[in-house]
Amino acid sequence: MKKYQRLAQQITEQIGLGVWQPGDRLPSLREQVTISGMSFMTVGHAYQLLESQGRIIARPQSGYYVAPRPVKQLKATPPAQVMRDEAVDINTYIFGVLQASRDAAVLPFASAFPDPRLFPLQQLNRSLAQVSKTATAMSVIENLPPGNTELRHAIARRYALQGMNISPDEIVITAGALEALNLSLQAVTEPGDWVIVENPCFYGALQALERLRLKALSVASDVKEGIDMAALKQALKEYPVKACWLMTNSQNPLGFTLSPEKKAQLVALLSAHNVVLIEDDVYSELWFGRDKPLPAKAWDRDDMTLHCSSFSKCLVPGFRIGWVAAGKHAQRIQHLQLMSTLSTSSPMQMALVDYLGTKRYDAHLRRLRRQLAERKHQAWQALLRHLPAEVKIHHNDSGYFLWLELPDGLDAGELGARALAHKISIAPGKMFSTTDSWASFFRFNTAWGWSDREEQGVKKLGQLIIEMLNE
Amino acid sequence: MKKYQRLAQQITEQIGLGVWQPGDRLPSLREQVTISGMSFMTVGHAYQLLESQGRIIARPQSGYYVAPRPVKQLKATPPAQVMRDEAVDINTYIFGVLQASRDAAVLPFASAFPDPRLFPLQQLNRSLAQVSKTATAMSVIENLPPGNTELRHAIARRYALQGMNISPDEIVITAGALEALNLSLQAVTEPGDWVIVENPCFYGALQALERLRLKALSVASDVKEGIDMAALKQALKEYPVKACWLMTNSQNPLGFTLSPEKKAQLVALLSAHNVVLIEDDVYSELWFGRDKPLPAKAWDRDDMTLHCSSFSKCLVPGFRIGWVAAGKHAQRIQHLQLMSTLSTSSPMQMALVDYLGTKRYDAHLRRLRRQLAERKHQAWQALLRHLPAEVKIHHNDSGYFLWLELPDGLDAGELGARALAHKISIAPGKMFSTTDSWASFFRFNTAWGWSDREEQGVKKLGQLIIEMLNE
Repeated sequence: MKKYQRLAQQITEQIGLGVWQPGDRLPSLREQVTISGMSFMTVGHAYQLLESQGRIIARPQSGYYVAPRPVKQLKATPPAQVMRDEAVDINTYIFGVLQASRDAAVLPFASAFPDPRLFPLQQLNRSLAQVSKTATAMSVIENLPPGNTELRHAIARRYALQGMNISPDEIVITAGALEALNLSLQAVTEPGDWVIVENPCFYGALQALERLRLKALSVASDVKEGIDMAALKQALKEYPVKACWLMTNSQNPLGFTLSPEKKAQLVALLSAHNVVLIEDDVYSELWFGRDKPLPAKAWDRDDMTLHCSSFSKCLVPGFRIGWVAAGKHAQRIQHLQLMSTLSTSSPMQMALVDYLGTKRYDAHLRRLRRQLAERKHQAWQALLRHLPAEVKIHHNDSGYFLWLELPDGLDAGELGARALAHKISIAPGKMFSTTDSWASFFRFNTAWGWSDREEQGVKKLGQLIIEMLNE
Repeated sequence: MKKYQRLAQQITEQIGLGVWQPGDRLPSLREQVTISGMSFMTVGHAYQLLESQGRIIARPQSGYYVAPRPVKQLKATPPAQVMRDEAVDINTYIFGVLQASRDAAVLPFASAFPDPRLFPLQQLNRSLAQVSKTATAMSVIENLPPGNTELRHAIARRYALQGMNISPDEIVITAGALEALNLSLQAVTEPGDWVIVENPCFYGALQALERLRLKALSVASDVKEGIDMAALKQALKEYPVKACWLMTNSQNPLGFTLSPEKKAQLVALLSAHNVVLIEDDVYSELWFGRDKPLPAKAWDRDDMTLHCSSFSKCLVPGFRIGWVAAGKHAQRIQHLQLMSTLSTSSPMQMALVDYLGTKRYDAHLRRLRRQLAERKHQAWQALLRHLPAEVKIHHNDSGYFLWLELPDGLDAGELGARALAHKISIAPGKMFSTTDSWASFFRFNTAWGWSDREEQGVKKLGQLIIEMLNE
């Protein structure tokens, strides 16, 4: 093959890979000469060849452009679908479910996030614009771990307003609560250690345990009352447990909030066994009642609780800003962060500081809670209307999940697969457990508003369940 | 203790912790009543008590404010200093050195970053402002892993301009190159696996290996020629190696760039042993010669190279945007990212897309390279002027590090500690190795401009070395 043919082939490959797309301007002849080190003549030949093949188009005075794609696309996008192969590992399964719920054509009942349209986009954008005026060259250094000082102060003050004394110095800003939780777990465990999680629990906890080679002790959790204290006591007695990762407010996926008494008991029990509590409190602002519930950390007198939360579920997921109130572990967490992601992005931290400074946050939260409560009610009513009466809907009064139980041991994974064929996603119970106990359950996200499309989706879900019951 | 005394004590504690700082407005009596659940009377008493103690000040018509701090601070900030206890682990040592180099009062010769004032702050801020106009509620979903489509295309095009065909689909956007490298390593290894690193190497590699419980095989690297191919061959023959993490361009800390022939050899050798290459190429844009050097991945025909880079060292560290061209491993890397940080922040990705769209990037890079080359020359000249002739200065022609060797086996860690007492930071060789081979070496950052202050710093460094030589 001649030089110019090789170059033409390379550019053809790049077009095939999507590096250059239809309508894109290719490097000029002169640029291509510099890039390829070939002569002007060779490059000219290559471009002529590509033109003659209809791959590129020369526009006089302007340059060479990638030709429009032939009508039939070379590579059709495979339809979004959840893997159903049982051999497939659970992470791939979870990934599939979450990917599906991102597709705008699919009803996102499986989504872990609330509808981002509930968030104050305009004000946040204003804060971003503000940062674009105030960011200096040195901002990046000021925002390295443990993170922006003002932001840590603002978070400490929100704790203080709940009567909790948390020093800004023990707060580390992270890439969302997920990084906070992962770093916390890593800070207090060694591979092979036993860690208590709830059953069912947030799949991120199971993934983190697997990633860090920790051994999971799944303790039963009740849909209303939360973790089974007797089972917890037994686990603590029988195993050398290092840490306990759980959610105390608006638990994912069940939705319960632990009573203050139970939080106090939990903290006392773990402290007595010298077990660190990693408290995932990402839904802390999404309560519907009269008062904001306290985290378990409020009862902790022994600095045994790492309290993790974020702005992702209540204000702005895209900024990726969370934190951990880590007590004596704050330094270790900073080290771990410096080794893995280095830090959270500087403009994002500054934009949040600006937004929080506008004092609109609490008004936004009040509105958000009202909207979420309304949407949850609408979804609940629709589910009652359209699902067969045998389906148990476990209601709860915070956050944006409902936990549903199929009758006759029907497989929620199978329902999920069938629903997806109709562009409806749900989050089957097996995503939330290492055991089979939740095969008939699924989590339903109620935060994405309610219109005829959602109504029809729930109706279809009801039909699919009836079909499965009749098989 | 009475109720109002308890409340007063709690607020005093919060002031002590820095939650409320001098001049801050405290919650009003009414707000405090809501927060604490105590009566108006009790809260009033508590505030009066605090006022009588001089801790807070009442301003009529305005509210209660935290009093100015007494002249003598309760807790003096300990002076920045590098830990010298030999028992201290290496990560704590590295952390100490890096922390010190962040202090504006300390000369940042230890810093890993270039002077952020070299970056196009105004244009980047303009892009940020632009994003504040175009970001929509749904942007967050569009920017989830593998990351913003346009950004991945822009990166693929930069590869294409070097003659490399990398599909946008195999690129995953990460929180800087550090996350890319960590995820890559995790994607291709299991705990206990053997991984080859250079000696000396970027400390992040050693930390990642430790974190993932991998076994390090340190292969000697020459300050000019890079990795010792004979030693590499032997290591590959004798150990079941899974991956090799190294830098091919402007290696940190030595500064060499592998020749094209050596890159080709390296890729062929690793491929022959079925060993994955994790290529850390964060300094790829900081070459000073005629042509941009290719990464080793350019020679890879077997999809065995994960090529990691970022915008942090050449455009904008604060955005925390890097990537990996991961080939067949792209899917696995996305999974791992979804489990650990979920994704890179959405506005930061969009701002970069906007900036790259302005076509100013290459002009910026040309200017940056010129400035870095100038600064490196200035620093080198100053080091030649002020350090005793016995100090070996290993020069190189890219990036912003110089590698220096103390005479008579003097301990660079000791020099670093003494220098820090004079507010000068350097990066001792032991940060870059698990062996003692580099105890007399240190890395010197030349990217922070040159003024009388730097000149005096280097002079002092020379004096300290002479002192040590005379001891």
